[in-house]
Amino acid sequence: MLELAFQADRTSAEPVYRQLEAYLQGLVEAGRLGPGEKLPATRELAAALGLARNTVAQAYDALCSDGLLVAHVGQGTFVAARGSGASQTPARSGARGFAWEGLVARRVRRIPVAEALEANPMLRDPAYDFRAGGVDLDTAPESELRRAFSRALARHGRALAAHRDPLGWPPLREAIARGLVARGIACDRGEVAVVSGAQQALDLVARTLVDPGDAVAMEQPGYFAAHWAFAAAGAHLVGVPVDADGLDTDRLARVLRSRRVKLVYTTPAVQCPTGVVLAEARRAALLELADEHELPVVEDDYDSELRCGGPAIPALKTRDPAGQVIYVGTFSKALLPALRIGYVVAPAALLTRLATVRIACDFATNPIAQAALAELLEAGDLERHVRRVRKLYAARLRALDAALAESMPEGTRWTLPAGGNALWLRLPAAADPAGAWRAVLDAGIAASRGDLFHFDGGGRDALQLGVANMDEPRIAEGARKLGAIVTRAARRGSRAA
Amino acid sequence: MLELAFQADRTSAEPVYRQLEAYLQGLVEAGRLGPGEKLPATRELAAALGLARNTVAQAYDALCSDGLLVAHVGQGTFVAARGSGASQTPARSGARGFAWEGLVARRVRRIPVAEALEANPMLRDPAYDFRAGGVDLDTAPESELRRAFSRALARHGRALAAHRDPLGWPPLREAIARGLVARGIACDRGEVAVVSGAQQALDLVARTLVDPGDAVAMEQPGYFAAHWAFAAAGAHLVGVPVDADGLDTDRLARVLRSRRVKLVYTTPAVQCPTGVVLAEARRAALLELADEHELPVVEDDYDSELRCGGPAIPALKTRDPAGQVIYVGTFSKALLPALRIGYVVAPAALLTRLATVRIACDFATNPIAQAALAELLEAGDLERHVRRVRKLYAARLRALDAALAESMPEGTRWTLPAGGNALWLRLPAAADPAGAWRAVLDAGIAASRGDLFHFDGGGRDALQLGVANMDEPRIAEGARKLGAIVTRAARRGSRAA
Repeated sequence: MLELAFQADRTSAEPVYRQLEAYLQGLVEAGRLGPGEKLPATRELAAALGLARNTVAQAYDALCSDGLLVAHVGQGTFVAARGSGASQTPARSGARGFAWEGLVARRVRRIPVAEALEANPMLRDPAYDFRAGGVDLDTAPESELRRAFSRALARHGRALAAHRDPLGWPPLREAIARGLVARGIACDRGEVAVVSGAQQALDLVARTLVDPGDAVAMEQPGYFAAHWAFAAAGAHLVGVPVDADGLDTDRLARVLRSRRVKLVYTTPAVQCPTGVVLAEARRAALLELADEHELPVVEDDYDSELRCGGPAIPALKTRDPAGQVIYVGTFSKALLPALRIGYVVAPAALLTRLATVRIACDFATNPIAQAALAELLEAGDLERHVRRVRKLYAARLRALDAALAESMPEGTRWTLPAGGNALWLRLPAAADPAGAWRAVLDAGIAASRGDLFHFDGGGRDALQLGVANMDEPRIAEGARKLGAIVTRAARRGSRAA
Repeated sequence: MLELAFQADRTSAEPVYRQLEAYLQGLVEAGRLGPGEKLPATRELAAALGLARNTVAQAYDALCSDGLLVAHVGQGTFVAARGSGASQTPARSGARGFAWEGLVARRVRRIPVAEALEANPMLRDPAYDFRAGGVDLDTAPESELRRAFSRALARHGRALAAHRDPLGWPPLREAIARGLVARGIACDRGEVAVVSGAQQALDLVARTLVDPGDAVAMEQPGYFAAHWAFAAAGAHLVGVPVDADGLDTDRLARVLRSRRVKLVYTTPAVQCPTGVVLAEARRAALLELADEHELPVVEDDYDSELRCGGPAIPALKTRDPAGQVIYVGTFSKALLPALRIGYVVAPAALLTRLATVRIACDFATNPIAQAALAELLEAGDLERHVRRVRKLYAARLRALDAALAESMPEGTRWTLPAGGNALWLRLPAAADPAGAWRAVLDAGIAASRGDLFHFDGGGRDALQLGVANMDEPRIAEGARKLGAIVTRAARRGSRAA
């Protein structure tokens, strides 16, 4: 086994895995680790260096995504062939190392994906998996999906092969339009565009409406990937605060008086990430502001199907006489992100422009997946599934809430969300956020730190805790571990003060 | 039946269907055709007005995509509910007609999709379907696809549900990398990114590298949708002529001496649309220029699998020591566009940036479709299929070539392409392109006019003729009709001169 003289600097602000990553990178660049050379298993190296196995795994992962290492399932991790240029055969592409970095477009540097991943490292096999954004995989309707794909191909094989409408497979557009009537939204299929997930909906809306430098107002904290989509289009993001009643429309009004804003983005049903509902008075105020300023409103209704408890609240889109609300829906939360299907409801005048952008992007969403989803909807499988997971997530959120109530120190703030499968928690003021976060990662607890949902660097004192990946006992156990960590951090803080 | 007093102006440069479209739009806007009112069937209206049925169908289609009409399969065509605002209930979104047009981003106006569709109207049920870009649907491997989807979901259901790597499903990346070795490209899966079709590859490359105003050099005539992707990113397109040896590298050299160019886009295997092969000396010259100017080269190898006859020609990517060739491949041409799967081969340093853009766009390609394709590749179904369709298209191209040789007048120029399923033809100088094109459309012949492949308005004297949608006898018949039209146009032109 390779002799590694790595020494972690525990006093540094830089996480240990980044230190190890830099060390290993140095060895590769110096040629001390040659192309094709096998690295020690994470377990071995962790033991040899006195580190957590996760720390080593994170460093390996980072180097793999940088292309310096290559992981082969079941075989181990190796130095990538192109790691050390000199030893390559000339025929191999990339051996000489073309300087790509200098050529990257400015817009790319505005999309803080790398920063988000750095702040929220992907733990491999976390002990407690509180990551949000996914669904419970044990209840994923696998056999229904298999049947739906098989029926779609059997019934529509040739039509699917020929299909190329950028706005979607007609039966799915129809089914989505029908489903929306139940939510109070009157539309025909001509106002529905099928897209490859809500993320593409946001990207297409951004590219269709936002010129570089245009201001986009959005909730802060707010959905990080909406931020990325608008930033990629060159938008200047203007944050509007969120309180217990959702987006603060008084603050929005002040913003709108002081500057031209191209559109406003909001998640009124279950605010992302805080889980609050946009209050009725605020809804009315938002629509009035939109009318007054001729402002399009993007209503991201990503998980309204998963609202639990409380009266049904009609979407903003249900009272939109001028057609200026762009309604975004998705099947990723209620069903499965892997389907990669979402939709936009908007007037045909806008959809025509959106279709132009769509064609330039990627022509159309996979029609086979669209037809399978249409089969699933027709069979009523989605409704059954939603009823099931809504109960499941609500019970898990209650379990999380109860365990947090037991174990979190005074001053920790959270509310049970109006729906979905994640909860937003703020550390007590006394706790040092950086220290608490390091302790969270070191305990193998995967969660999202709150700055992911801020574009001004704020939110480091908040955590988003998802409940899709663990059962109730495990959630409670994880919450208690978290509670202990936060309690220690708060005590240390109080002593220091 | 509604009384329609439409009179076509045959002397106008505006196509009759556009005239009819404007007339009907006027009726709707004036309220003479009310919301929900049913329009006459195309056949009836065509008979009543003495027009070709296609002309009526085109006008209806245009009004449907404008949202003024709505077509319901099996029921007919109706005036859309929002067509006449006043009669709506206030609850209906969009009734008041928000002014979207003024809000559309500048970049959208640079994507000439609408112009392309206007120049190349979609004929409904054309008599002869020479449209290109698709595949023969009778040979589409439907049962293999059904099996592949079913196996993928059965074998990997849970892993697929959990998958979210923006660069693709690992077994598919692996299979693509293996397949490329057979084409002389040495890469590992870390250098392969799966994308939703070649169009997304081009869009992602454009968004990753092109800042607004950057110059992009591409073949002219060249692939129209590449033009759209680069235009959408704000590129300034610089056309480089194409002759029998492909992209003219001397002209490219001159361009590069006179201005900074961000990247060059080329289709060296089977030039789109001319079908010529980039000659060996030109390949060497292109790579030298790329080296000298530190210029990324996008090699769009969209249908090299369908090359017929002639020695195999290694991709540019096979001699790319610095890794500055971005290789784009797709399964749309060799297999099926409906799969919406393509790929990019590039150094990991670039793919990391591409992944950032990808996440902001739409996170990832449908993993179920990716896994199904991996199953299909593993089963050897693609290879078998390619052998079959390569022969099929080659025979059809020969049949087209022979029929054109019989029936086209002197001065018409075309060459049998090096592969694929379309042929590029230039009218004789004597023929008036506009008159010939009108006659082509009036005869119900669907094809693409050459200006689709130019971004300077040129190419109106050229046609792209695809052979995927008809069998050999039908192709020959269509070619003879075309020959008669072009012969008449050339005779009229000679007499006029």
